[in-house]
Amino acid sequence: MKMTLEAAAQRIAAALQAAGATTAMATSTARALVLAESQGQSGHGLSRVAQYLTHLRNGRVVGSAVARVSRQKGAALLVDACEGLAFPACELAVAEAVRVAGEQGVALVGVINSHHCGVVVDHLRVAAAAGMVGLGFSNSPAAMPAAGGRHPVFGTNPVAAVFPRRDADPLLIDLSLSEVARGKVMVAAKQGKPIPPGWALDAAGLPTTDAQAALGGSMLPLGAVSSPKGAMLALVVELLVSAVIGANFGFEASSFFVDEGNRPHLGQLFVVIDPGALAGRDGYFERVEVLIAEMLGDDEVRLPGARREALRRLAEAEGIEVAEALVASWAPAA
Amino acid sequence: MKMTLEAAAQRIAAALQAAGATTAMATSTARALVLAESQGQSGHGLSRVAQYLTHLRNGRVVGSAVARVSRQKGAALLVDACEGLAFPACELAVAEAVRVAGEQGVALVGVINSHHCGVVVDHLRVAAAAGMVGLGFSNSPAAMPAAGGRHPVFGTNPVAAVFPRRDADPLLIDLSLSEVARGKVMVAAKQGKPIPPGWALDAAGLPTTDAQAALGGSMLPLGAVSSPKGAMLALVVELLVSAVIGANFGFEASSFFVDEGNRPHLGQLFVVIDPGALAGRDGYFERVEVLIAEMLGDDEVRLPGARREALRRLAEAEGIEVAEALVASWAPAA
Repeated sequence: MKMTLEAAAQRIAAALQAAGATTAMATSTARALVLAESQGQSGHGLSRVAQYLTHLRNGRVVGSAVARVSRQKGAALLVDACEGLAFPACELAVAEAVRVAGEQGVALVGVINSHHCGVVVDHLRVAAAAGMVGLGFSNSPAAMPAAGGRHPVFGTNPVAAVFPRRDADPLLIDLSLSEVARGKVMVAAKQGKPIPPGWALDAAGLPTTDAQAALGGSMLPLGAVSSPKGAMLALVVELLVSAVIGANFGFEASSFFVDEGNRPHLGQLFVVIDPGALAGRDGYFERVEVLIAEMLGDDEVRLPGARREALRRLAEAEGIEVAEALVASWAPAA
Repeated sequence: MKMTLEAAAQRIAAALQAAGATTAMATSTARALVLAESQGQSGHGLSRVAQYLTHLRNGRVVGSAVARVSRQKGAALLVDACEGLAFPACELAVAEAVRVAGEQGVALVGVINSHHCGVVVDHLRVAAAAGMVGLGFSNSPAAMPAAGGRHPVFGTNPVAAVFPRRDADPLLIDLSLSEVARGKVMVAAKQGKPIPPGWALDAAGLPTTDAQAALGGSMLPLGAVSSPKGAMLALVVELLVSAVIGANFGFEASSFFVDEGNRPHLGQLFVVIDPGALAGRDGYFERVEVLIAEMLGDDEVRLPGARREALRRLAEAEGIEVAEALVASWAPAA
């Protein structure tokens, strides 16, 4: 059935509350999932509701958690998600980062005791709206080996960035450091098709083109078929969001896709920069347009975020299609 | 001939001074080039001396420049390289970043009006020595297209990181965002051999396996044969080190390899983080070892920086081989 974004968010929030989430946690999470869905990011959208409900019910997530700033030294802060869903904690973290960057020129905020944070770049939208540049990082349950390795150590470890523009949508960059998303391997496995070399290793840590074998093994980092660079970037992200701030490593967290498992205690990290403190606000905005004009000198170049924003506007105008069976599945077990 | 690192640095510093560099600029630059050479990074080592001498003599670099902090707001600073060689400016930038991160938990320092900065991770070694985590970025004259593009817009835009360990060498990560270094294409061109797909585009912006054609075209970003992710990361770095801090874009800077050309006004950006302000120093050090132990569970995994450090120690003990013709070429024209 067709639902407005607002109606979809209300249904999701109600389901999350019924499973024990506070109103604040339910509202923040529902809004984020609908925003992801509206941009065509269904892997981080409505498909996650059932998972979050299960985690709330089986104690992998604490529904009563209230995210709070647990530490601040100058421009560096920690937000403790307190084992709740990640969204209110990330929202608080970026709000604090924007506030502190306004005073200090830059702010770095880590989120600890956290969970799945969805589309990382969406958390940074408020930074762009405030005229600030934002960077975001997260880890996730282990999926990728270290360079040369055979077993999963790092998450797919997304990297996101926003760069505001004066009279246009911000540039929105959001990518995981795996060669492809695991979902592509799942599709190939269902269809009984092989996958290209460079996507995955099997359970023994050997390169495979067998999709089914890949699902029991590891995803490969970006460009791994020819270079350790993707794995090195994944290592950098893994350390920034865990050892540096005090969160768990990806290999210590149970998969989000199993019902039983630990509270993942994963981490996120956000850096917000005020260009007004460096190049100056006008200088920054003018220079961004110079680079964009140069990029668009080639016909085939599309700006990052343009497709997401077009889809989002369409969904805002026309609503989104939601399967009735999906909504029905959110109802509490009788 | 075999030279000690100290003797090589003195010869280089003398040559740079004879070409107009201040003692401070000459010393800092010579030390950095010898450090690069000693680690096996010859593309950023002694091979650059002749280039820097030419740039000093033809005015692409101002030998009398004195790098200085030109702006500070809280934890965000700018260092102006004042059109000199990049090394004293980067040295000042990271020293300031370490100082400010000690007070603020984090510091971000941009370097403007800058030039070729060599091995980025080497600038961050002092951060690791102070027990801090460091990130470094630079742009360079345009070599890579935007995602989907056909002409060079971004530099190869290196990303570097250091993570200190308690009783061991720091992890040293340093990679450019191109699929391979241009030097590999040069070697293939000299040997008349083809290059693999995914390395480069020709001058018309079409994929090529002809090394000679590639030299007149663009290098491709990491993983570009299958994904725009490498190009997106290059865009993020390009904006951070230019629009955000007030430096030139890669496409605005003349190649380092031409004698005539502009003062490049390129940018560098360093972020230094004190884990003591976040996870706590002990917690950080303990957790890094947990991740490293997990990584080393696979026999084939090598820690980033291990090879560099082994080469550096060997060179410190035994000196480096320097061609007499190379040293002779550094003498001022009669």
